[in-house]
Amino acid sequence: MEDWLTSLQTDTPQQGFELALKLARKGVAYTQTSADVREKLRPEYAENADSLTMASHVVATHFQTVAAANNYWK
Amino acid sequence: MEDWLTSLQTDTPQQGFELALKLARKGVAYTQTSADVREKLRPEYAENADSLTMASHVVATHFQTVAAANNYWK
Amino acid sequence: MEDWLTSLQTDTPQQGFELALKLARKGVAYTQTSADVREKLRPEYAENADSLTMASHVVATHFQTVAAANNYWK
Amino acid sequence: MEDWLTSLQTDTPQQGFELALKLARKGVAYTQTSADVREKLRPEYAENADSLTMASHVVATHFQTVAAANNYWK
Amino acid sequence: MEDWLTSLQTDTPQQGFELALKLARKGVAYTQTSADVREKLRPEYAENADSLTMASHVVATHFQTVAAANNYWK
Amino acid sequence: MEDWLTSLQTDTPQQGFELALKLARKGVAYTQTSADVREKLRPEYAENADSLTMASHVVATHFQTVAAANNYWK
Repeated sequence: MEDWLTSLQTDTPQQGFELALKLARKGVAYTQTSADVREKLRPEYAENADSLTMASHVVATHFQTVAAANNYWK
Repeated sequence: MEDWLTSLQTDTPQQGFELALKLARKGVAYTQTSADVREKLRPEYAENADSLTMASHVVATHFQTVAAANNYWK
Repeated sequence: MEDWLTSLQTDTPQQGFELALKLARKGVAYTQTSADVREKLRPEYAENADSLTMASHVVATHFQTVAAANNYWK
Repeated sequence: MEDWLTSLQTDTPQQGFELALKLARKGVAYTQTSADVREKLRPEYAENADSLTMASHVVATHFQTVAAANNYWK
Repeated sequence: MEDWLTSLQTDTPQQGFELALKLARKGVAYTQTSADVREKLRPEYAENADSLTMASHVVATHFQTVAAANNYWK
Repeated sequence: MEDWLTSLQTDTPQQGFELALKLARKGVAYTQTSADVREKLRPEYAENADSLTMASHVVATHFQTVAAANNYWK
């Protein structure tokens, strides 16, 4: 796999949040390596409230890591 | 996307809690970008106890981050 | 919304636990703002083992935050 | 409610684990205050693998808190 | 119950991971005290992908604690 | 079991993420020791959005540990 994660440091909290999103998606992509299948699954969860909440929870967990890595952008 | 997160610092714990709520919702909004669809899903989870508990869990996870960023407002 | 969270500091661990409970419930109340609806949902989860476990998990997550804020009442 | 949590300090890691269990159960008991109902729900989850795993997760979350409070019994 | 947890310190990360597994199982065993019932439930979750993922999550949560207790075996 | 985890230190964040994936899978493998059964379960969760999200959550939890072990690769 190509290099996709060279640092946890970001300039702003928002970029850190977006990095957390990327980490959450990569956690899926390493398990389901087919982009086609992932695309096919998208409607299934993007229109289901609980699925979206679960996805948001993964982002929250990664955001803890990224925020700590950036000393909370203090 | 416009700037929506420039700092994790808040004046009070309550504002920090409300920021955690915002982060939880943004985690959903980045995945389901249509505000219309999100609005349509709202009754589905806002009247389901487990869905609300799951949503509250995401808020709790973000609140850990925000509270740490504010040194727990000590 | 009125002021409901002015500090994470509590005198005792038990008060901290009860604050964690309050935070968990507020996470629900911000999403489902109708107290009537929340009351109607109560039997649904208060008599379901998994729902109670999920709710207890949210409390546990908040209790981590409150305990850290109080330096574990050492 | 009577005093049930006066300290997070324990003499041994095992006592800390047992305190985590107590905290997990209290998280349930504050929501479902009837001991009779809780007892009735017991078979439902004590013989369901996923329910037991969920309960074990709550204990794990509280054990993080208790272990930190005791500086990991180092 | 006999002594089963006298220290969170381990010699290697792998032993720490195995301690995390033990803690996850103990979280179940304290709730379902019958080894026979636990054995009967085993096929139910050992052949279900989501059950295994849930169990792995509990291990991950305990591994955070054990790793911190060992200063990450640095 | 052979030695599979001798250190949490990695050279890059990406290698740390891949270690987190390995830890998540090991958490499953210790419970379901048959590689054949695990292989049989794979399609079940690799084509289910919620299962993938759950798996990604376990990775996120382990990534917190690995990132802390590496002082966030600062």
